[in-house]
Amino acid sequence: MLGNCIDKVRSTVPLVHNITNYVTVNDVANILLACGGSPIMSDEPEDVEDITAICGGLNINIGTLNQRSIEAMFRAGKKASGLGHVLLLDPVGAGASALRTDTAVKLMQELSFDAVRGNISEIRTLAVGSGTTRGVDADVADAVTEENLDGSIRFVKNFAKRAGCIAAVTGAIDLVSDGNICYVIRNGRPEMGKITGTGCQLSGMMAAFLVANPEEKLEAAAAAVCAMGLAGEIAWEHMQEGEGNATYRNRIIDAVYNMDGGILEKGARYEVR
Amino acid sequence: MLGNCIDKVRSTVPLVHNITNYVTVNDVANILLACGGSPIMSDEPEDVEDITAICGGLNINIGTLNQRSIEAMFRAGKKASGLGHVLLLDPVGAGASALRTDTAVKLMQELSFDAVRGNISEIRTLAVGSGTTRGVDADVADAVTEENLDGSIRFVKNFAKRAGCIAAVTGAIDLVSDGNICYVIRNGRPEMGKITGTGCQLSGMMAAFLVANPEEKLEAAAAAVCAMGLAGEIAWEHMQEGEGNATYRNRIIDAVYNMDGGILEKGARYEVR
Amino acid sequence: MLGNCIDKVRSTVPLVHNITNYVTVNDVANILLACGGSPIMSDEPEDVEDITAICGGLNINIGTLNQRSIEAMFRAGKKASGLGHVLLLDPVGAGASALRTDTAVKLMQELSFDAVRGNISEIRTLAVGSGTTRGVDADVADAVTEENLDGSIRFVKNFAKRAGCIAAVTGAIDLVSDGNICYVIRNGRPEMGKITGTGCQLSGMMAAFLVANPEEKLEAAAAAVCAMGLAGEIAWEHMQEGEGNATYRNRIIDAVYNMDGGILEKGARYEVR
Repeated sequence: MLGNCIDKVRSTVPLVHNITNYVTVNDVANILLACGGSPIMSDEPEDVEDITAICGGLNINIGTLNQRSIEAMFRAGKKASGLGHVLLLDPVGAGASALRTDTAVKLMQELSFDAVRGNISEIRTLAVGSGTTRGVDADVADAVTEENLDGSIRFVKNFAKRAGCIAAVTGAIDLVSDGNICYVIRNGRPEMGKITGTGCQLSGMMAAFLVANPEEKLEAAAAAVCAMGLAGEIAWEHMQEGEGNATYRNRIIDAVYNMDGGILEKGARYEVR
Repeated sequence: MLGNCIDKVRSTVPLVHNITNYVTVNDVANILLACGGSPIMSDEPEDVEDITAICGGLNINIGTLNQRSIEAMFRAGKKASGLGHVLLLDPVGAGASALRTDTAVKLMQELSFDAVRGNISEIRTLAVGSGTTRGVDADVADAVTEENLDGSIRFVKNFAKRAGCIAAVTGAIDLVSDGNICYVIRNGRPEMGKITGTGCQLSGMMAAFLVANPEEKLEAAAAAVCAMGLAGEIAWEHMQEGEGNATYRNRIIDAVYNMDGGILEKGARYEVR
Repeated sequence: MLGNCIDKVRSTVPLVHNITNYVTVNDVANILLACGGSPIMSDEPEDVEDITAICGGLNINIGTLNQRSIEAMFRAGKKASGLGHVLLLDPVGAGASALRTDTAVKLMQELSFDAVRGNISEIRTLAVGSGTTRGVDADVADAVTEENLDGSIRFVKNFAKRAGCIAAVTGAIDLVSDGNICYVIRNGRPEMGKITGTGCQLSGMMAAFLVANPEEKLEAAAAAVCAMGLAGEIAWEHMQEGEGNATYRNRIIDAVYNMDGGILEKGARYEVR
């Protein structure tokens, strides 16, 4: 019953602390509000422990990391862990630079994340870097397709099991697994890739879903992925002539704003493997 | 004649220096342009004195403060004070962390603000922290309502008098006082709370209104509050099926863009107490 | 054949590294996606060399520069230069503060830019500061108009020749020169000045155009300028009652998203001098 997960967000209004990049931060804040959560942003090391203490979850996104925000990530993460809060990692650009890879791997080692969300390339980087992969896993393809689906599911399950958290690999086909079962999700549209930050937005929203649904975190993570993809589908139907990616961005957040459990339940397209 | 205040902004194009958070900064810049002002952003300590010198007002917003931007706030604030510029403080999150509370209180102590704009909780934090409250004032409620209106007005007047500046407390009912009289404003819509940064936007716009109306600052602050709320009302009328908070954000800025003194004068809903 | 230049961007998907201000960064990312490029942002000195190495171009925008990002600009710039990447400078606010002027001038001295894009005031500041001007050049007017067009063209050509790069001076009339010939471009609308960041967006897009068209960089720079102005014209035609600068911003990016070589070729309004 994935639909329940968003209703729970709306009824509990989870407060999510985001240490995130300055490129997409406004959209992350607005989609958190759209889904029924409440965002707060802070990345100063001297500020983050107090801020995270009043929240229910922490969303760490390394998109435009710097030495200051990296320190803030570890301090906030340890504080949030100690308080039993939800922790989510979005390893933006892991694999693209040594600093990003090292930071993401070290965050995985020192903190206990409830969920990690990224594209297949980022998650593979984490798998290799953190020793959570096995030989064959490193051969996982660059994109999840119907052709390599079985192997991709195996990889995501293995990663989740070894990392001890929910792994959400998003792309044309999305995979969300806790190590035992895997949601294979086919919501979304390719045009979403022409908007900056749909992944960042999903991570923020997923953190809210996890906070609001502590008893069924896997379902909550899958529900967030379905909600994002479904919002992309609904928004596309509202697109008018002459509109493009900037308006599409707004229409997606708008679609989340208007989504309830019934709409999500009906529109979610997934199988459990 | 609150309407005149926005006409003055359009005819004088006040340049406002903003040291503000990276979450809502783009919307702050666009609403400043929409109302007829001109924005410039800078938060590097070595840069802010030069930048603020060419402006007419300084808007300090502590939303995503860090050690560097805090230093910039004090340096820019002292420079702007020395030049007789308008100074406005938006104490975002005061009360939510020690760093935010301490920074806001210290800014109030060291700088002479023309106006402080925040929600009731932030202003109460400042009142307690800066010793501008008296015993009973700390009992002010968490939200300004018709039921506690008299007490809330008393609190805001007292705060303004003791702080020596205009106090603008915004929420379902907005209160703007210079310590002697208090505008009670009932413009706006509850859905504005589902957009990140309507408060930040108002603070930026209020700074422009103050710069453009040096002889009637209280009216200017009240006019900015009415303009923001009225824009929220006008924007809501333009909302179409399927639209939500992302589009609403744009429509509010659009409504400010299309607002003139006549529209503001006619749409402002307030009483003076 | 300016139209070809945007088709080349779409067919080659150039990856552009942006060290840019946090005010307009989201719009820069979305317009890069809209035109067919791919954006990545990073401003941490320890991160930028790796990031820029995987890109084809580097867009340096000093809009909200700080000590950290300045260091990143030089490190990324040297790395990108060594790799033969496209380098573009947007000297936002040069002339408005000593730090901005000094940083822009020093960047010009230490790095070999392919293009510099700014308004006439910023480019004049660079001309004076970097010794690329001659006596009479400093007299260039504050805005390029039909009346001072000849003198302005002479100034831009001289600047480009002495700086050894393409100079793009944008305003009501845009001038793009490599020192020998000068495109005089009359696309665009005055209302674009009421949106924050149309200049920043153009700089990001221009970097993508330069990367995708290495054999005809002057044409590529001119094509980017025409594309931005034309998008402003197309977007304006789509504006509906009650809409203003926030929606106009989105509609411009949307217009770029829907632009192909044929549309650009047909809509570009320029002469070569």
